[in-house]
Amino acid sequence: MKTLLTGATGTLGRAVHALLAERGHEVVTAARKNADITVDITDPESIRAMYEKAGRFDALANAAGWVPWKPFAELSHADVLAGLAGKAASQVELVRQGSAYGTDEASFTLITGVTTRDPILTGSVASLANGAVEAFARAAAIELPHRQRVNVVSPTVFTESIEAYGDLFAGFEPVPVRLAALAYVRSIEGHQTGQVYLV
Amino acid sequence: MKTLLTGATGTLGRAVHALLAERGHEVVTAARKNADITVDITDPESIRAMYEKAGRFDALANAAGWVPWKPFAELSHADVLAGLAGKAASQVELVRQGSAYGTDEASFTLITGVTTRDPILTGSVASLANGAVEAFARAAAIELPHRQRVNVVSPTVFTESIEAYGDLFAGFEPVPVRLAALAYVRSIEGHQTGQVYLV
Repeated sequence: MKTLLTGATGTLGRAVHALLAERGHEVVTAARKNADITVDITDPESIRAMYEKAGRFDALANAAGWVPWKPFAELSHADVLAGLAGKAASQVELVRQGSAYGTDEASFTLITGVTTRDPILTGSVASLANGAVEAFARAAAIELPHRQRVNVVSPTVFTESIEAYGDLFAGFEPVPVRLAALAYVRSIEGHQTGQVYLV
Repeated sequence: MKTLLTGATGTLGRAVHALLAERGHEVVTAARKNADITVDITDPESIRAMYEKAGRFDALANAAGWVPWKPFAELSHADVLAGLAGKAASQVELVRQGSAYGTDEASFTLITGVTTRDPILTGSVASLANGAVEAFARAAAIELPHRQRVNVVSPTVFTESIEAYGDLFAGFEPVPVRLAALAYVRSIEGHQTGQVYLV
């Protein structure tokens, strides 16, 4: 199975890469740098170039997304737009363009996070983008052609990352990033669509 | 109670206006035309001018939002951005700027729709924007200053509008728009925050 992995170089992307490789996937990595293909997923033209270069694939797994983390009172309109571009419109574009490049049963796996349902301080743009992507995936799932599928992995904070967030996730049980990687496998190798896998 | 009602001239806005007036609110209407204040909620500068003109308010009720309805395969990247601007970033901006103009206990009531949870054909951008706003409201609710509040009204298709949608909502039970207006009252006159009122 040929899997194109965007955001391959981050904490999550590396864990997804390792697990997919263990499972025998031919993984083609994409990221802003240090990957098989260089891509900026906020730029539709860069996404097009990536898909042209990667060729037909069985699965697109995305582990990339960026939003600003700021107190609500300090957010600018530009912050809101940047978060929507960085984590919502970018992931929509991966599916919108990717449908033409994937196989007939290709799957798309997108990334959100716990803040869709459990908000935290400074996370209002994260919640905004995550909520967008989860609802979008449910909708795109009923319109994708052939038997293409789309799911979302929505993890809580990772054991590997929690120190970087200080007390923002106080009281949250962190999970090893490997559990999120497992959810990617469930999405890619399973046959469900329109699902949000809570990790 | 002084309530600023944006999107006052549509099917929903008129019903909200009528019910709030019945309940003794001082309603200040805002819309693209035919309202007390002219506003384009996709333009942050127009929102600023509206708030300056309206003066301090106890409640902001928004009944405006626009997204493109198109088959997924026909969506352009511009459609996606237009929908996010028309129904998501616009409503975020009403709260973001409005917090400084509302009273200490001001409420914000936003609008989404059933497509967050129940997708329909041609509705993927509607789902995207609605999911964004619902998750945003949960997040902004824990950061708004003083005792300001934010809730969302998420109605299914209205009895008054269902003919315009043809078979898109086949099998959905339509509701009278007055039930959605009631949910605005529940949000404005109640004391909850971060809620999504399903209608």
